Amino acid sequence: MANFVKIFDTTLRDGTQGEGISLSVEDKMKIARKLDSLGVHYIEGGWPGSNNKDIEFFTRVKELGLKHAKVTAFGSTRRKDTLPENDINLNRILEVGVPVATIFGKSWDFHVHQAIQTTLEENLSMIYDSVHYLKNKGLEIIYDAEHFFDGYKNNADYALQTIKKAEEAGADWIVLCDTNGGSLPHEISEIVSVVKRSVSIPVGIHAHNDCELGVANSLAAVMAGATQVQGTINGFGERCGNANLCSIIPNLQLKLNYSCISEEQLQSLSNVARYVSEIANMHLPVNQAFVGAAAFAHKGGIHVSAILRNPSTYEHIKPELVGNKQRVLVSELAGQSNLVFKAQELGLDFDHNNEQSRKLIEQIKEMEHQGYQFEGADASLELLIRDAYGKQEELFTLESFKIIVAKNAGQPVVTEAIVKLNVNGESVYNAAEGNGPVNALDNALRKCLLQYYPVLQDMHLSDYKVRVLDEKDKTAAKVRVLIESTDFQNTWSTVGVSANIIEASGDALIDSLRYALIGKTRSAVQAEEQKERIGLVNH
Amino acid sequence: MANFVKIFDTTLRDGTQGEGISLSVEDKMKIARKLDSLGVHYIEGGWPGSNNKDIEFFTRVKELGLKHAKVTAFGSTRRKDTLPENDINLNRILEVGVPVATIFGKSWDFHVHQAIQTTLEENLSMIYDSVHYLKNKGLEIIYDAEHFFDGYKNNADYALQTIKKAEEAGADWIVLCDTNGGSLPHEISEIVSVVKRSVSIPVGIHAHNDCELGVANSLAAVMAGATQVQGTINGFGERCGNANLCSIIPNLQLKLNYSCISEEQLQSLSNVARYVSEIANMHLPVNQAFVGAAAFAHKGGIHVSAILRNPSTYEHIKPELVGNKQRVLVSELAGQSNLVFKAQELGLDFDHNNEQSRKLIEQIKEMEHQGYQFEGADASLELLIRDAYGKQEELFTLESFKIIVAKNAGQPVVTEAIVKLNVNGESVYNAAEGNGPVNALDNALRKCLLQYYPVLQDMHLSDYKVRVLDEKDKTAAKVRVLIESTDFQNTWSTVGVSANIIEASGDALIDSLRYALIGKTRSAVQAEEQKERIGLVNH
Repeated sequence: MANFVKIFDTTLRDGTQGEGISLSVEDKMKIARKLDSLGVHYIEGGWPGSNNKDIEFFTRVKELGLKHAKVTAFGSTRRKDTLPENDINLNRILEVGVPVATIFGKSWDFHVHQAIQTTLEENLSMIYDSVHYLKNKGLEIIYDAEHFFDGYKNNADYALQTIKKAEEAGADWIVLCDTNGGSLPHEISEIVSVVKRSVSIPVGIHAHNDCELGVANSLAAVMAGATQVQGTINGFGERCGNANLCSIIPNLQLKLNYSCISEEQLQSLSNVARYVSEIANMHLPVNQAFVGAAAFAHKGGIHVSAILRNPSTYEHIKPELVGNKQRVLVSELAGQSNLVFKAQELGLDFDHNNEQSRKLIEQIKEMEHQGYQFEGADASLELLIRDAYGKQEELFTLESFKIIVAKNAGQPVVTEAIVKLNVNGESVYNAAEGNGPVNALDNALRKCLLQYYPVLQDMHLSDYKVRVLDEKDKTAAKVRVLIESTDFQNTWSTVGVSANIIEASGDALIDSLRYALIGKTRSAVQAEEQKERIGLVNH
Repeated sequence: MANFVKIFDTTLRDGTQGEGISLSVEDKMKIARKLDSLGVHYIEGGWPGSNNKDIEFFTRVKELGLKHAKVTAFGSTRRKDTLPENDINLNRILEVGVPVATIFGKSWDFHVHQAIQTTLEENLSMIYDSVHYLKNKGLEIIYDAEHFFDGYKNNADYALQTIKKAEEAGADWIVLCDTNGGSLPHEISEIVSVVKRSVSIPVGIHAHNDCELGVANSLAAVMAGATQVQGTINGFGERCGNANLCSIIPNLQLKLNYSCISEEQLQSLSNVARYVSEIANMHLPVNQAFVGAAAFAHKGGIHVSAILRNPSTYEHIKPELVGNKQRVLVSELAGQSNLVFKAQELGLDFDHNNEQSRKLIEQIKEMEHQGYQFEGADASLELLIRDAYGKQEELFTLESFKIIVAKNAGQPVVTEAIVKLNVNGESVYNAAEGNGPVNALDNALRKCLLQYYPVLQDMHLSDYKVRVLDEKDKTAAKVRVLIESTDFQNTWSTVGVSANIIEASGDALIDSLRYALIGKTRSAVQAEEQKERIGLVNH
């Protein structure tokens, strides 16, 4: 039987301190449901003493009937020179009716003097009183020792006194926080070991990523005896973020043989990472460990030919274990083995020697020579392969577009797009405005298509990139436009290349819409089911 | 005296395996120059045996006269059952004329069988022969032991034989590669210690980030005795990237007291990270450790008030040590000192306290908040300063422009621009075609201006870059356009920001033309002399 480590998720509290992250109560509800299905043990929902939105969340989260996770509320120790009974912050935790309180207090003597400006003795009383007060009300108490590692390095004796005081007051857990993210794994390891010998209640770790060591520090703490890990999905959080649970959980479970969540739950990890980043409206980096779209993507030709022989030659785990998948990027660096692999993925019998395949390879080479790059544009590549094999239904074709951008000095610029499409044999003509030419074109295309394919409503562009290909040609240079689109199930990328940025963008936009419609016509029912599952349909 | 660790940068080779990264020879030259000024010890420029673009780089990099860094070329051991003298891959390394060769070979018995399909004995000979051949030609040899950690875990004895063979053949370094990024810090530490006892030449580490442990693994190796670290700027690289030098260097130097580069060079780290990501057209995550724009940004209310009392309450290092800055206290502009310096350069007496200067600083802060960045756009900054001080003659103003982009299926796209300018009080109205909207606008502007300022004929655009600023807003996001222009004397850069790419480009184009005219009215004679000197005038 493997050692068990409890996962404490603070995406909804510490995660929201990240730059650009702002979650509505509705967003938090969706994420809480998802975290529960992932199997985390604690969900820290917010700080009721500092934020009314958080109070609403704690009220509404009870409706969800979470199965695995205990919901916990965050708060500081009582203010100096007051009674816990009179502390609004502590009483709010009681009022919101959670089974678990997470109370943070000072461990670093320097902070006691500088930040809260009181005596070391009063700080110890603040810790004792706060934990004791809430424990007596029947709550499970997680005591978060803020800046513990810095405190220990500065005054080990005092730092240890603070956590012993929390233990004495009845805390169920001591969680050691590397609040500013400045500690290194060997320090974490050594200090956690000392703490394990100093207290008899279980110990946890709360790490940050300021040295790009948040994951390593969390693992080091567990190997030194910690049995709770606090972190966030995708490492969201202030500055460089909190320790990333999406890397910590698979490392603990697949590499170090600890047990946190079930195998099936681990297989939903990539989906959880993408879902949470969608809800938070944050870009999920393609190169994110374990869950990123490029985490198991292979570009180098030698790698790809080895992968085709045996995936474990260049993959450290089976991607399916974390719900991700192997991808092969087609690029000039690689051989045709990449393309064979891609076609196999689509269930096509790719024969090098038949006429179709030879033509397709020629076409792709020619396009790459013109500046296309398919390694970042899987969906455009799939459309090419499908077209070559006649597997692609032609749902619409572009007949014409016109874009007008007009600017008069001192007035806002005006942009209009006029589009003519042939949809299922009918001619559709429509116009739209936009913030810029690409946005106007996107709007006009959708106006034409939505009446035929309302399912396109769920899809939106999530990234737009422009690369000038040959600087020597100045403003007449070719540009490559990459567009990333997303619905609630998938993310796909398309590419366009032209000397004209509008034409390149238009090509990528049209590919994106075409790709969205393959999926939709194929699996409209599945999509509805999925939406229902993730709570986007109101009953 | 601190222990010394050599930094081996492979941004230009392994970094280009990252999804979406593609560097022209010109890009590689710019990055090489920047890496040299950062003080890295080795720059791996490419794989001459696999790529003609890389050969051109090795030829041209000699023009740069790099000061610190040795340039190295990458290649595999000779193919099985051949002589090294007949191996194109090895001979290419000799032909490109580098002082250092980085040769990789197999350490994992499984890979010998599966990937290169030969015997364990032949693999040992391939290593010996390749290292010996190049060493005899006078090169410094870095032997990269691919998949060393997996190899060691599977068959320690054989893995050690492979590196001993490289040592015996004359290798100067053994670099242990965790090629698939699957190892953990405690394993790295243990295995590096064994290797240190088994060979007598220096040992290095090459880690990947598949477990989000690339930095931790590199540090663990150094603490176990490695004295070379291979990695890339911003952790660019295949799948989840290579180990990130932008985190490894400050951790080694500021936390562990190793010495890699000078203090001044370390202070340029954030600038290098941003420069390289600009050139590679990759988004630098705001939360990137040490160098990201949010790495020292404070959002939480309690943090901010503590920070105001004493920054070290919530900052693990002084941001200035890595050339970054705290975000709550300082303006967005990298120190007003830049502005003072720039104004002095223009012969203006810049007084912080006068009304003009305060207004200008406010204006620049506001523009930076909107997404302007003047670090790469000196000419636009100079125009702002000149305008604020009334030192800029208004030679022309834009009255209006209109761009029309029209596309009919099966026909080439047509782009026209119509421009109305006021030049010295006269209204000038003209139109032009172009390859794309920006080119058409550039052509129309010139048509209006050339009759008044024929000297503009000498100037042309030398670079055009587009950056999407806020991915969340999809195609309605703001874009920043950077334009680099050149005449025969100078190169200058201008910037424009708008939700509309055409407007942003137009602003940058107009700044570029305005800047060109300051120079020209000031030094038309000098320009003529210059043209004569470089042979552009026919006699």
